[in-house]
Amino acid sequence: MKTALTTILLALTSFSLIAQQNIFNRTEIVSPEINKDNTVTFRLKGPEASKVTISGSWMPSKGFESPSEEMHKGDSGVWTYTTEALQPELYRYSFSVNGVRTTDPSNAFAIRDVATLSNIFLIEGGKADNYKINDVPHGTVAYRWYDSPGNDKKRRLAVYTPAGYENSEENYPVLYLLHGIGGDEEAWLGSGRAKQIMDNLIAQGKVEPMIMVMPNGNVSQQAAPGEASDGFKRPTFMLPHTMDGKFEETFIDIIKFVESNYRTVEKKEGRAIAGLSMGGYHTAYISMNYPNTFDYVGLFSPAINVNNNQPKISVAYQNIDEKLKAQLDNGYKLYWIAVGKNDMQMLLDGIQKYRKDLDAIDMKYAYKLTEGGHTWENWRDYLVEFSQSLFKK
Amino acid sequence: MKTALTTILLALTSFSLIAQQNIFNRTEIVSPEINKDNTVTFRLKGPEASKVTISGSWMPSKGFESPSEEMHKGDSGVWTYTTEALQPELYRYSFSVNGVRTTDPSNAFAIRDVATLSNIFLIEGGKADNYKINDVPHGTVAYRWYDSPGNDKKRRLAVYTPAGYENSEENYPVLYLLHGIGGDEEAWLGSGRAKQIMDNLIAQGKVEPMIMVMPNGNVSQQAAPGEASDGFKRPTFMLPHTMDGKFEETFIDIIKFVESNYRTVEKKEGRAIAGLSMGGYHTAYISMNYPNTFDYVGLFSPAINVNNNQPKISVAYQNIDEKLKAQLDNGYKLYWIAVGKNDMQMLLDGIQKYRKDLDAIDMKYAYKLTEGGHTWENWRDYLVEFSQSLFKK
Repeated sequence: MKTALTTILLALTSFSLIAQQNIFNRTEIVSPEINKDNTVTFRLKGPEASKVTISGSWMPSKGFESPSEEMHKGDSGVWTYTTEALQPELYRYSFSVNGVRTTDPSNAFAIRDVATLSNIFLIEGGKADNYKINDVPHGTVAYRWYDSPGNDKKRRLAVYTPAGYENSEENYPVLYLLHGIGGDEEAWLGSGRAKQIMDNLIAQGKVEPMIMVMPNGNVSQQAAPGEASDGFKRPTFMLPHTMDGKFEETFIDIIKFVESNYRTVEKKEGRAIAGLSMGGYHTAYISMNYPNTFDYVGLFSPAINVNNNQPKISVAYQNIDEKLKAQLDNGYKLYWIAVGKNDMQMLLDGIQKYRKDLDAIDMKYAYKLTEGGHTWENWRDYLVEFSQSLFKK
Repeated sequence: MKTALTTILLALTSFSLIAQQNIFNRTEIVSPEINKDNTVTFRLKGPEASKVTISGSWMPSKGFESPSEEMHKGDSGVWTYTTEALQPELYRYSFSVNGVRTTDPSNAFAIRDVATLSNIFLIEGGKADNYKINDVPHGTVAYRWYDSPGNDKKRRLAVYTPAGYENSEENYPVLYLLHGIGGDEEAWLGSGRAKQIMDNLIAQGKVEPMIMVMPNGNVSQQAAPGEASDGFKRPTFMLPHTMDGKFEETFIDIIKFVESNYRTVEKKEGRAIAGLSMGGYHTAYISMNYPNTFDYVGLFSPAINVNNNQPKISVAYQNIDEKLKAQLDNGYKLYWIAVGKNDMQMLLDGIQKYRKDLDAIDMKYAYKLTEGGHTWENWRDYLVEFSQSLFKK
């Protein structure tokens, strides 16, 4: 139904297929629809499709099989599926149409995870309110390029400065927050909701205002896929030099950039470092290689001691016992390890081995075995908890 | 084929369906593949699909119909389509599987345009090299929140500061760059490639280093969809108060924020304003309502004089002749209008009418009638050309 008004509106946007679809084909279908009882209804118009399924992050995982459920075709070719009532959380999902994985054409919100776009939605309440954008003072997110002489290239990182930073003369403490394999400097801001978590917890007075620096841990990259001079190169999972010590060795380039470009507390009590999975591994080695630098260390589901068959030739991986001892002797305020009890056995075993190494030298740490597995659901929880322990006066 | 190594890698990512698909299902299919002769091959694995089509921004538009081409099913259920040789440009496309529009599951790069995600790819060379990320000094992109007392809310804008800004004491000129209907503060950075254009042209010495401010012209919004406290609300095309003068009336809030938060040249010779479509309309009215503020004014396919049936009650729309006369008398360096000859007749007519108004008071302007229509292809071109005329000493 094209009215005179929509014709005028059409005139004001791109003439592309895309805009037209917005106006004429799309507004009929609402998907996802979050119902009052926190069940969620998904809809997809596909009169010519013969099989449509949905995969969602709320579905119990079945080992290496992707869990999925069939959607049902109703009137006028609209396929629907309604979940059970869901707990508050940020969820991901995708459809499959006749065997082809697709995003939901009615949902413009998607997050890239490695090489895949998935749609997202949020069930409000409880802990998910930390991930919501609430009407609170908002920090600034900046994507900046810094020089990394140790890697002989310019590289990109994301910096969160808390609300008020720009209109203050104060120095702020810094949390360095590292991503996992396949991630990059955008991962914590996308899947991790780190910006929203900080805005909300700072506004509630639960977290000290801090700068949060999210570097790219893949030293062979300049930046996230699509943001570097190699163009729209297909994102890959395991990049060269990602766990060979180069990131740890050159981390000083990042600290130098941050401390010369932001008003920071340039001492151990003003620095924290944490990371998930591979980023937890990086965090462990960075903090022990710069053993008088961080008062707060967070290992979130760290992938430590899992690739022992790989040769460890980097200086960053030599003399571990000595380095840990130095870190212990120099003192620190918090060494925090968390992992989900359904994480891979190999990972759980690696962490147990690491704990024994720490115990052997009487190096204190907090250890938390949570529900769940190797998931962003857990890593968001860990950030919420860990950040509340930092920089308290 | 799961090797021991991939099993280890799997352990290091999220256990979700998503990561597994990356590793096991996805690496086989390359799409899009840009061939040496600049033809492009698209591939989609869909053995159970019975009809697959592709729509792309290189296809000639057929009025209100979305142009599309059929893809062909080959061995092992992979559908393919190869274009003719394409000119250098940033292109968008989507697939349709049995009638359902979908993104390309093998291409992680997509841009949101209003409510729709479309995949993108770039054919290098010529003008498209302005849109590429080249190995040049990179500016910073920051998303900041400012107070808009005139709209009684906090609002979000994007700010580009050129490479070197942070390590300098200099004051920089500012280009205010406005989006069209359905757009927001992310539009020029997404579809518009404004960051890449500035980085590249500044590095080549063609454009003066400048700050570029991209506000959100929909005053009923705080921020782009998904970035405001109304959550993941479906993006809509026409928002309330978008062309009723409120944005123009309250634009001073943005200037004040920028000039008190950045080192700027706080005079007319240090300010430019430009916008596309609705943003061109906003630009015309803002520049005449603040008639001694901008030395450079750019109307890109401006949607001016197209909605004359709507009552214009805002003070921003009163006494136009007087205001234009004041702008003329105060002086300016460049008033630049460009539009594509295939744009909507209504829009072309509106611009002709506006030109007559300018001619009537002998207000000088540059006018450029280009190829093409109401498209991002044109607006990127216009930014490339307009920006090279700004702030020259």
